[in-house]
Amino acid sequence: MPKISNRGTNMPASPIRKLVPYAEAAKERGTKVYHLNIGQPDINTPEVALNAIKNTNIKVVEYSHSAGNESYRRKLAKYYQNIDINVDHNEIIVTTGGSEAIIFAFMSCLNPGDEVIIPEPFYANYNGFSIMAGIEVKPVTSKIENGFALTPIAEFEKLITDKTKGIVICNPNNPTGYLYSEQELKALSDIVKKYDLYLFSDEVYREFCYDGETHFSAMHLKDIEQNVILMDSVSKRYSECGVRIGAMITKNKNVLDTAIKFAQARLSPPSYGQIVGEASLETPPEYFTEVYNEYIERRDFTVAALNKIDGVFCPNPKGAFYVVVKLPVDDADKFAQWLLEDFSYNGQTVMVAPASGFYSTKGLGNNEVRIAYVLNKSDLNNAMQCLDVALKEYPGRTK
Amino acid sequence: MPKISNRGTNMPASPIRKLVPYAEAAKERGTKVYHLNIGQPDINTPEVALNAIKNTNIKVVEYSHSAGNESYRRKLAKYYQNIDINVDHNEIIVTTGGSEAIIFAFMSCLNPGDEVIIPEPFYANYNGFSIMAGIEVKPVTSKIENGFALTPIAEFEKLITDKTKGIVICNPNNPTGYLYSEQELKALSDIVKKYDLYLFSDEVYREFCYDGETHFSAMHLKDIEQNVILMDSVSKRYSECGVRIGAMITKNKNVLDTAIKFAQARLSPPSYGQIVGEASLETPPEYFTEVYNEYIERRDFTVAALNKIDGVFCPNPKGAFYVVVKLPVDDADKFAQWLLEDFSYNGQTVMVAPASGFYSTKGLGNNEVRIAYVLNKSDLNNAMQCLDVALKEYPGRTK
Repeated sequence: MPKISNRGTNMPASPIRKLVPYAEAAKERGTKVYHLNIGQPDINTPEVALNAIKNTNIKVVEYSHSAGNESYRRKLAKYYQNIDINVDHNEIIVTTGGSEAIIFAFMSCLNPGDEVIIPEPFYANYNGFSIMAGIEVKPVTSKIENGFALTPIAEFEKLITDKTKGIVICNPNNPTGYLYSEQELKALSDIVKKYDLYLFSDEVYREFCYDGETHFSAMHLKDIEQNVILMDSVSKRYSECGVRIGAMITKNKNVLDTAIKFAQARLSPPSYGQIVGEASLETPPEYFTEVYNEYIERRDFTVAALNKIDGVFCPNPKGAFYVVVKLPVDDADKFAQWLLEDFSYNGQTVMVAPASGFYSTKGLGNNEVRIAYVLNKSDLNNAMQCLDVALKEYPGRTK
Repeated sequence: MPKISNRGTNMPASPIRKLVPYAEAAKERGTKVYHLNIGQPDINTPEVALNAIKNTNIKVVEYSHSAGNESYRRKLAKYYQNIDINVDHNEIIVTTGGSEAIIFAFMSCLNPGDEVIIPEPFYANYNGFSIMAGIEVKPVTSKIENGFALTPIAEFEKLITDKTKGIVICNPNNPTGYLYSEQELKALSDIVKKYDLYLFSDEVYREFCYDGETHFSAMHLKDIEQNVILMDSVSKRYSECGVRIGAMITKNKNVLDTAIKFAQARLSPPSYGQIVGEASLETPPEYFTEVYNEYIERRDFTVAALNKIDGVFCPNPKGAFYVVVKLPVDDADKFAQWLLEDFSYNGQTVMVAPASGFYSTKGLGNNEVRIAYVLNKSDLNNAMQCLDVALKEYPGRTK
């Protein structure tokens, strides 16, 4: 039997999805499982988007332009212009989810063996995309004690070698919820300029900024316009994760001309998803106000509930809809599996994402989990009660 | 400004899409362009599939299982069982088009530097996916004089080195329309077994076999069950290219366990596309009879019309909906561009795909083009008239 590839062997299992079989087994035993492991909001997709699909009058579901439908890209450009991101439709390549935007960006800009610096904990799938592109991830470690603030730029500079080609940020951050300040982005801009690096900026949670904070985009850094690649997605903005529509955006024409060749190889992004994405741009402002208020309540509730549990520490993040939380456990991977395999409280349990998979440095995050506060408050309340009881019962509790 | 990657530089422009700007310019001048360059059929998508979308009652467009919805995979397994491909739903990973099935297969099975042997001319995007995976394509050349039959296995054997890890076939073939016989597949099976290679089989045109011929799948080769990776797509079968739904299928559990990690990294295939794909399995048999008859007529008409033009040679293929045709021109790339830039007949012209992009060996295919007979007969008739006149007027005509 022929061997599988080394990159296949090295490819990590998703920390978000690797426990799915245990969750399925728990459900088969009749246990209700609260899914705090995945950023799958329970928020309705905007009606205007759902109606667009119902009202299509397509006879032949054709390939679209490889960069996405022009009508969609023109409207998307306006969306960006409204948030002071000055791009036109030719600077946008519509992708199959934010995932493909990352792949196109890495494939277009980086050679196998090149290094990128990423603040950890980071979105775990950057590991997988890095393995696909053959690049090395060099982590700088953000600390839970500082609420996962950006490490001093000196920490980045220590990692720079002649192989360093880029920095990857996610802002607001998945998994920490941390929102980078304008000052932090300007510090990044300086180092990007000094070493002529790419800055890959994943901003799929742009709309989820709390406590009066506003989002400062990497695309606002005029000094490094040619270095910035924006990776975006409609998944979270409109709670339509399944449509698989994202975008790779840059002012750098060489990168665009290169990325479109990768886009042409896979022919086109999904046609129905593009219809949904385009219609979603007509979502009324009330939708966002409602969603925003809902998430603020959920965050406030979740953070408070977690910090009330003995031995638990949870920072209060300013963005996205995740928290990384420190638990009094020996091993969060074991704890997360135990929750699904050996625990239930009133016939219920919780699925969380062990944080170790979000760190690149071995040994870090072993007593942390990521929680996505994407459920309604009543479910969140039940889930927090489960966690509270579970942490008392768990045999591997540390203190 | 940071450099783009070497693989980005090496990435070929799509031979099918690189002339699109010239076609757009021609249309702006008011010229009608017949698109014979791309396998985008004008055939309607089955109504049952279109209705499924209109009748969805989704409130939240969620991620699906990374391998695709189980209900869809279970029905897909039955589709395969009905054509004697003995797989269950756990041996199927639903992908974003056939494109992603190829990427998952290459990424899971092959290391950078590994070699795959591919009969040329071949589907041009194998080049792009090979560059993404860092693998080398070693072509064996099929000849237009033999109707692009499989070269003797000795020709494959000559290319085998210790880096050879697989053979890629497309059956029925894009771009040639050639349908491999059971005997040819058994010859491939022998060499696959002898050297313990992977056999990557792209069978997206399975249903398009003419003149009473039947399709023999690589999955029918019981001897090499663990070596075969099937790459499939619903795009052509149901004329729904835009839904971006395909599948990677294998009996090899190691490959499945590896490929699912790549699938998890990109989260899930498109939700709406999966609804369409699942509903398409209910397409009534009359649909296929009609489509089949239509394509037979188109092929017969196209092949006859082409061979009637002085200096043109077109084999009569048994499958798919393409022909590769030899033209009396100095350079098919120049001719294809000239058709769009400098030629029109009765306000009409034709877009064809120069065949050089389908060959890996430099210099081959320079006087060949691929024609997709995906238009109705009246349009095909006009297109053939255009070609006839164009070949008389073209300044680079060779004989």
